[in-house]
Amino acid sequence: MLKRISVKTNQRDEMQDITSEVRSALKEDSFRNGIVIVYSAHTTAGITINENADPDVKHDMLMRLDEVYPWEHPKYRHGEGNSASHLKTSTVGASQTIIVEDGNMILGTWQGIYFCEFDGPRNRTVYIKTLEG
Amino acid sequence: MLKRISVKTNQRDEMQDITSEVRSALKEDSFRNGIVIVYSAHTTAGITINENADPDVKHDMLMRLDEVYPWEHPKYRHGEGNSASHLKTSTVGASQTIIVEDGNMILGTWQGIYFCEFDGPRNRTVYIKTLEG
Amino acid sequence: MLKRISVKTNQRDEMQDITSEVRSALKEDSFRNGIVIVYSAHTTAGITINENADPDVKHDMLMRLDEVYPWEHPKYRHGEGNSASHLKTSTVGASQTIIVEDGNMILGTWQGIYFCEFDGPRNRTVYIKTLEG
Repeated sequence: MLKRISVKTNQRDEMQDITSEVRSALKEDSFRNGIVIVYSAHTTAGITINENADPDVKHDMLMRLDEVYPWEHPKYRHGEGNSASHLKTSTVGASQTIIVEDGNMILGTWQGIYFCEFDGPRNRTVYIKTLEG
Repeated sequence: MLKRISVKTNQRDEMQDITSEVRSALKEDSFRNGIVIVYSAHTTAGITINENADPDVKHDMLMRLDEVYPWEHPKYRHGEGNSASHLKTSTVGASQTIIVEDGNMILGTWQGIYFCEFDGPRNRTVYIKTLEG
Repeated sequence: MLKRISVKTNQRDEMQDITSEVRSALKEDSFRNGIVIVYSAHTTAGITINENADPDVKHDMLMRLDEVYPWEHPKYRHGEGNSASHLKTSTVGASQTIIVEDGNMILGTWQGIYFCEFDGPRNRTVYIKTLEG
């Protein structure tokens, strides 16, 4: 199974919970056992797994990542001006792999799957691929 | 094959080598060829692959990660006070994928699989999933 | 399918585009559908997916990573002196997983697969593993 979903982001930096979209894709396909890969086809937006409860976690993560990889830097050369977005994307990664057992993703109580926008707002594409096993 | 192992951590920040536990799981199952996914079901602890020889590498990594993502920060809002743990977890990642050939994981000479505790001490759960191919 | 490719690096820090090598490996094997795992068997070199167009992006990424994880630090203990390399490797990760559909990797327009050298120049080994599904 391979599905494509669209994600519309609203901020320059934003973590959008896409767990329910991944869950729906698995359900539609009656996928039972194996792994699911959630993949961002972009170089300025990635995927991470992190806390789904307190929205302040997202705030703190995006705030600190922006300090570690600042938007402006006297030594950046890239003309588009979004080198920070590229750095953040390689830090969180382009994809995450989640185990599926009896139709359910194995996620800890507080784990959610996040699309991480680092150069929005934009319309983005996420691929969801399953492998049985 | 899907196995669950328990990891008991002893420090707030700690890298615990779990390579032999993963190796045992593969052996118990006589797993021969494919991939193995090692997954942390937590938002304040991840998995990484790094040096298994000099323990000073772990010291230096945890020390510097703690400077890059400091425990206290005037702009953190998250009430639990462990935003640094969430940042470190998304940096190393929730899981690692390792190739298995003829029953052996393809690991470089110095590569070990580490459970990375960033908000311990705690009792943690790691999932080990294999896919043949 | 499991293939091994050699990568020769020329700088201490270097991002080398290996997308065409991965594409060739898939083609040689007539691999059609599933995933491909690109894996670095090293603790001071990783794999990331990032922009393949403007070389300044690589410059900016390597420059800033070197500031975040400096080569020299008064608190580093590791005798080999390459703790920064280990930190950068765990940040980008040891491997990347890419979806393959009808013989083509699903990569966004600007996405390339990079071997990230963080302690070169050296001769390095990358493994390419496919799983059908």
